[in-house]
Amino acid sequence: MASSPKPVLYTYFRSSCSWRVRIALAFKGVAYDQVAVNLIKDGGQQHVDSFKTINPMKQVPALAIDGIVLSQSLAIVQYLDETRPGPRLLPEDAKKRAQVRMISDHITSGIQPLQNLHVLQKIGEEKKLEWAQHFIITGLQALESLLQYTAGQYCVGDEVTMADLCLVPQVYNAVRFKVGLTQFPTIVKINNALLELDAFKVSHPSCQPDAPPQS
Amino acid sequence: MASSPKPVLYTYFRSSCSWRVRIALAFKGVAYDQVAVNLIKDGGQQHVDSFKTINPMKQVPALAIDGIVLSQSLAIVQYLDETRPGPRLLPEDAKKRAQVRMISDHITSGIQPLQNLHVLQKIGEEKKLEWAQHFIITGLQALESLLQYTAGQYCVGDEVTMADLCLVPQVYNAVRFKVGLTQFPTIVKINNALLELDAFKVSHPSCQPDAPPQS
Repeated sequence: MASSPKPVLYTYFRSSCSWRVRIALAFKGVAYDQVAVNLIKDGGQQHVDSFKTINPMKQVPALAIDGIVLSQSLAIVQYLDETRPGPRLLPEDAKKRAQVRMISDHITSGIQPLQNLHVLQKIGEEKKLEWAQHFIITGLQALESLLQYTAGQYCVGDEVTMADLCLVPQVYNAVRFKVGLTQFPTIVKINNALLELDAFKVSHPSCQPDAPPQS
Repeated sequence: MASSPKPVLYTYFRSSCSWRVRIALAFKGVAYDQVAVNLIKDGGQQHVDSFKTINPMKQVPALAIDGIVLSQSLAIVQYLDETRPGPRLLPEDAKKRAQVRMISDHITSGIQPLQNLHVLQKIGEEKKLEWAQHFIITGLQALESLLQYTAGQYCVGDEVTMADLCLVPQVYNAVRFKVGLTQFPTIVKINNALLELDAFKVSHPSCQPDAPPQS
């Protein structure tokens, strides 16, 4: 496969992991093409053979860029940060960078995987709301505590970082699963500040070409 | 709290996330003190208030180092790699570095969280083996495919990287949950090669001070 000058993002409008990458692309001002992979329709387009060769994990996002295909949102975000110009998403200071990764991993390993589509499908329709709420609330309680040590205007200090790219889609998921947010004042404050920024607006699920009109 | 010259690792012998960090510390030749946090005894020592202030997520590992406390294994491993001398765990080449993070995240976000203690406790004694096996097998199948693109002697090329620090503890978990490994020849080959290395041997769960005699 010849490398294309324009990256191609395999995405689904409502996937929180895809949203993280869309924010990074917007924040860095990287032009890209989108291929929508509908995770619901036809039993899930991520299961077709042509997509399996792109991402064997059968999940979005995946990004074809510079002649390789990358999956896993944080690997993609950090690759973009290390190879593309524009405002940096990982701070220069090693301790702050570690805190950004700690918060990012807390969300992407500690919260999000437990409300992933294939997990909720295994839990079953009847129990999935209680299951998702349990792990989102536990995870956000810990995050609210962590942020007391690290937050300024955003998750770590006063610059937008990779941690913020994880926060906003996770809060969006919390709302989808009807989790009340009043017990998380720091998270809510940061989330509201981030939603004012262009990169977060244009990448919002409701603005994606594959979003149905009512979303 | 004054910063200590010697880092302190909060760990549990059988925690695969703690093992990742122990390998990194050994690989980099960093001397450290251990505090054992028994995740089972007394309903789990991670729930006591004194530990909650160390890691609000109430999980191991946590590393007190350079005046801060870090949790999340990959954040810790990358902080050690960026601040300590010794062989590097993230390759210099940006594409290879992205592949290392992709494989690491695939294991730490895509497989391990679904067989974490607090998840299996919620699934219940009766169903937990089938649940863990399902997600480990699915995850290792995808990993076996990914490795066809990236592996040399180890997960990415011929140098030990952060991805290898994730692979070995995950294979150990697979064995604990009675997953047959013959369908994963690349994973088995790399795992066996890694287990020959000192850093993987000294950090093994069975060699830890908090391991019971029979483990």
